[in-house]
Amino acid sequence: MDAEAFRRAAHEVADLMADYLATVEQRPVLPRVAPGDVRAHLPPAAPAAPEPLERILADYRAFIEPNVTHWQHPGFLAYFPSTASGPGILGEMLVSTLVANAMLWRTSPAATELEEVTVRWLRDALGLPLAFDGLFTDTASTSSLAALAAARQLATGDAAAAGLYGAPLRFYASAEAHSSIEKAGMMLGLGREGVRRIPVDDAYAMDVEALDAAIAEDRAAGIRPAAIVATVGTTGSNAVDPVERLARVAAREVLWLHVDAAYAGVVALLPDRRAPFAGWERADSIVVNPHKWLFTPLDCSLLLTRRPTVLRDAMSLVPEYLRTTDQVAVHDFNEYQPQLGRRFRALKVWFIVRYFGLEGLRSRIAEHLEQAARFAARVDGEPDAERLAPVPFATVCFRWHPRGVTDEAVLDRLNQQLMERVNATGDFFISHTRLGGRFTLRLALGNLRTESRHVERFWDLVRRLGPEVAAESA
Amino acid sequence: MDAEAFRRAAHEVADLMADYLATVEQRPVLPRVAPGDVRAHLPPAAPAAPEPLERILADYRAFIEPNVTHWQHPGFLAYFPSTASGPGILGEMLVSTLVANAMLWRTSPAATELEEVTVRWLRDALGLPLAFDGLFTDTASTSSLAALAAARQLATGDAAAAGLYGAPLRFYASAEAHSSIEKAGMMLGLGREGVRRIPVDDAYAMDVEALDAAIAEDRAAGIRPAAIVATVGTTGSNAVDPVERLARVAAREVLWLHVDAAYAGVVALLPDRRAPFAGWERADSIVVNPHKWLFTPLDCSLLLTRRPTVLRDAMSLVPEYLRTTDQVAVHDFNEYQPQLGRRFRALKVWFIVRYFGLEGLRSRIAEHLEQAARFAARVDGEPDAERLAPVPFATVCFRWHPRGVTDEAVLDRLNQQLMERVNATGDFFISHTRLGGRFTLRLALGNLRTESRHVERFWDLVRRLGPEVAAESA
Repeated sequence: MDAEAFRRAAHEVADLMADYLATVEQRPVLPRVAPGDVRAHLPPAAPAAPEPLERILADYRAFIEPNVTHWQHPGFLAYFPSTASGPGILGEMLVSTLVANAMLWRTSPAATELEEVTVRWLRDALGLPLAFDGLFTDTASTSSLAALAAARQLATGDAAAAGLYGAPLRFYASAEAHSSIEKAGMMLGLGREGVRRIPVDDAYAMDVEALDAAIAEDRAAGIRPAAIVATVGTTGSNAVDPVERLARVAAREVLWLHVDAAYAGVVALLPDRRAPFAGWERADSIVVNPHKWLFTPLDCSLLLTRRPTVLRDAMSLVPEYLRTTDQVAVHDFNEYQPQLGRRFRALKVWFIVRYFGLEGLRSRIAEHLEQAARFAARVDGEPDAERLAPVPFATVCFRWHPRGVTDEAVLDRLNQQLMERVNATGDFFISHTRLGGRFTLRLALGNLRTESRHVERFWDLVRRLGPEVAAESA
Repeated sequence: MDAEAFRRAAHEVADLMADYLATVEQRPVLPRVAPGDVRAHLPPAAPAAPEPLERILADYRAFIEPNVTHWQHPGFLAYFPSTASGPGILGEMLVSTLVANAMLWRTSPAATELEEVTVRWLRDALGLPLAFDGLFTDTASTSSLAALAAARQLATGDAAAAGLYGAPLRFYASAEAHSSIEKAGMMLGLGREGVRRIPVDDAYAMDVEALDAAIAEDRAAGIRPAAIVATVGTTGSNAVDPVERLARVAAREVLWLHVDAAYAGVVALLPDRRAPFAGWERADSIVVNPHKWLFTPLDCSLLLTRRPTVLRDAMSLVPEYLRTTDQVAVHDFNEYQPQLGRRFRALKVWFIVRYFGLEGLRSRIAEHLEQAARFAARVDGEPDAERLAPVPFATVCFRWHPRGVTDEAVLDRLNQQLMERVNATGDFFISHTRLGGRFTLRLALGNLRTESRHVERFWDLVRRLGPEVAAESA
C-alpha cells in the first residue's frame, strides 16, 4: 500500500472510528450472538489472492464491529472500564505507524525518554515520593508478575540464576485479591499453594491479625515468607487493605510489599481522597493501570518500585546482540519486565495527561466517585435493595432484596435472574461477584462515556425489573 | 473530546501518519541524539490545565517523531523487522477505538472468534496439522514463557498448584537460542542455570550428540529434564536446529519440544521452502511472530500447541467474577497465557492476510529471501569480505576481512568501526553479534519497505567504507 493509498484508507477508517464512537450508545452493549455465530460468517481458509480493502472494511462493518462487546458504550458497567478516549486513540494511531520497539534506548530514544518522563509525571501526581521509579507494562498481570519476581529475588538471594528450590516460598494476599496475584505465584514457581489467602474482615479488607498468624505459622513450618500483596480497591468490592499496618508487618518481617491499586490507584490523583492509600508510599512496588480508569486504551499498566535494581536483577539478561554502549545513562526497559519487545505506550499517556490536564483528569475521576456515591445512596434508600459492601471508590456492590425474604438461595437466584434481565436489555452490562457467599451485583464506574443520566437510568431499570423478577420467582 | 472533534482530530492525525510513512526514508534511521536530549525538551511536571491538541501534536512533530529509531525506514536492517504495513495500521486504528478486551469470549465474542479463525488460517498456511491450535500473545517472550510453563506442568505433575520444588528441572536450548528462553527459565523458577545451553556445530545449529550427553548427565545427577527448545532461525545467524532429530530425542526422553521460529517461521508459508522446518509438526508448541516478518505492527506473536489442555492447566485460574456459562463452546483465551487482559490482535492479522492474500505474503517473503541470497553472493564474491554463517533465511552474517589480515582482534575492531560508520550515515542501521567469538555484522531483512535497491546501496556503502576503515586502522 503506497503512502497515498494509505492516506486515503486512513481517512476512510478515521470516519469509521468516529462513526462508531458517535453511535456506540445505540447498540446493545452485549452483542446478541451465541458461540460460533461470528465464526460462521468467516471463511475457514485464508484467501490465496489479495482482496480489495473495500471488501475487508465492509466485512469488518458487517461481522466484527456489531459483534464485539461494546466497552465504549456508556452502559458498559461490568468490568473495570478501559476507555478509548480521543487523545488516547490518537496516540495509538501514531504508535501503530512508528512501530518503535521500546525495548532498548537505542531502539527508540524518544520512546524511552518519554516513558521516563510520563512515569515520573504520574508518580508525582499520585503523591508518591521521588524514591519510586518505573515503567509501563501491558497489564497489571505483568506488573504484578514482575514485582513478585523481584520479591522472589530478594527473598532467595538469587532465584534468577539458581532457580526456586529449597524451602517453599510464600506470598500473602487477601482472600479478595485479584487472580493475577495467584497467577504470578503459578508462573514464578510458587504454585497456587504458594499464595496464601488471608481472611478478610466485614469490609472485605485483609485481617492483619490473621496475616500475622499465618506468617508465624509458615515460619514455624519452615516456609519462607517473601511478599505481602496489599490491594487498594479489590476487584470484587473495591475493598481497601490496611496498607499502613501491612507496611509495618512487611518491615518487621523483612518482606516485599506490593500494592495492587490497578483500578483505584488513580484516585490518589485527588489529594483530598488519598486516605485509603495511606502507607503505600512505604511499598516496594505499586501497580496502577492507566488502561483502567485513566482513559487510556488497552494496554497500559504503570509499575512503580523503589527497588529498581532488584527488579532488574530478577529479569535482566543482556545478550551480546542487544548490548549497546548507552546503558550507563539510560534505561533499557526490557530489563525490568518479562518481555523483550515493548510497545511505545508512553505516547498515549502523554497525549491524555496533556489533553485533559491533571485538573481535567481529577474532575472526571471525582465525577465518577460522585456517581458511585449517589448510586449507593439510592440503594441505601430503597427498602427492597441492599448494599453489600462499602464504596470507597466507584464500584458499588448490591442486590435486590425484597423485604421479608431471608432465604439466601432465593436471593441468589433472584439476583442472577435480575442480572441476566438487565444485560438482556442491551442498554447495560453489569457483572457479579460473591461476597460472603452471596450473589452480588457489581456496578463498576469509571467509563469516561458514562454520565450521571446513564447511572440514573440504570437504577430506574433495577427498580423496575427487581420487583418483576421477584414476582416471577415467587 | 466529542465525536465530531474526534473526527477532525483523527483526520489530522491520519495525514500525519501518511506524511511520516511517505517521508521516513529521508530521515536518518538512527536519530542523532544522545541520552537525555529528548528528555530535555519535556517539562518535568505534568500540566495542571488542559492543553490544546494542536500544541500536543506540534510537540509530537518537534520532539518525538524525529527522535524515534525509524523501524519503518527501508534502511532499518538491524533487528528483526516489525513492519507497520498499511492494512496492519488500519487494523490497529480500529482496535484502539473498540478497545474490546479479548480476555473472555463474553468480553468480546467477535475478537475471540476472529482469533480462532485467523490462528487456524495461519496454522494451515504454515503447513501444520489440525492437531495444532493456539492464540495470539504479545511477544515471543510471552509465547515461549507460556509454552515452557506447560512443559513444566507436564514434567512436574502439577507445578501450577504445588510449585516448583524437589529435584531441579532442566530446559535445553542451543548456545545460540534467544535470550527469551533463558528469561522464561528465570521467570518460571528454574533460573538461568535451569536452562542448559547445548553447544552448536559449525553452522551454529544444536549438536544433538551433546544434547544426548547433557540429558544423560543431568538424569544421572538427579536433575529432571523437562523441555527441549529447538530454534529455526536463531537471532544471531538464523541457524536451524535439527528439529526432526530433536523431535526424536524429545519422544524418546518424554520431553516437551518447543520450536522457536519467531522470525523465520513465516518462511513455511512457502511450500517449497519448508525443508528447514522438517519435524516441527511433531513439536508440542511453536512460536511464530506476525509482528516480525508478517508485516504486522508490534505486538503480535502466534503460539501454537498440540497440547492446549496442558497449556491451560499451567495457567488457568477462573475466579468467580470472571465465570461465565459460555466456556463449554468457546475459548476464554486468558486461560492460556500469563496475562488476564488481552488486546484484540486478530483484527490486524485478518486485515493483513486478506489484503495481501497468501500469494502476496509469499511473494514478498520470497523477495526478501532473494535479497538475502543476492547479498550473500556479493559477500562471497568479494575477496575482502567474508560470510560468517549459512543463510537459510534472510539474515546475512558477514564481516569486512581485508586479504592477509589474520589478527582477530584487528578484524573485530575494524568491523566494529565499520558498523559505527555505516550507522552514522543515517541511511542504514545494522547490528552485530558474535559468532565463534568474532565480531559479526548482521543484515536482517524482512522489512516490507526494504527493496533490492536499498540492499544494493548498502553493499556499495560497505565496499566503500570497508577499505576506508581498514586504511585508517592500519
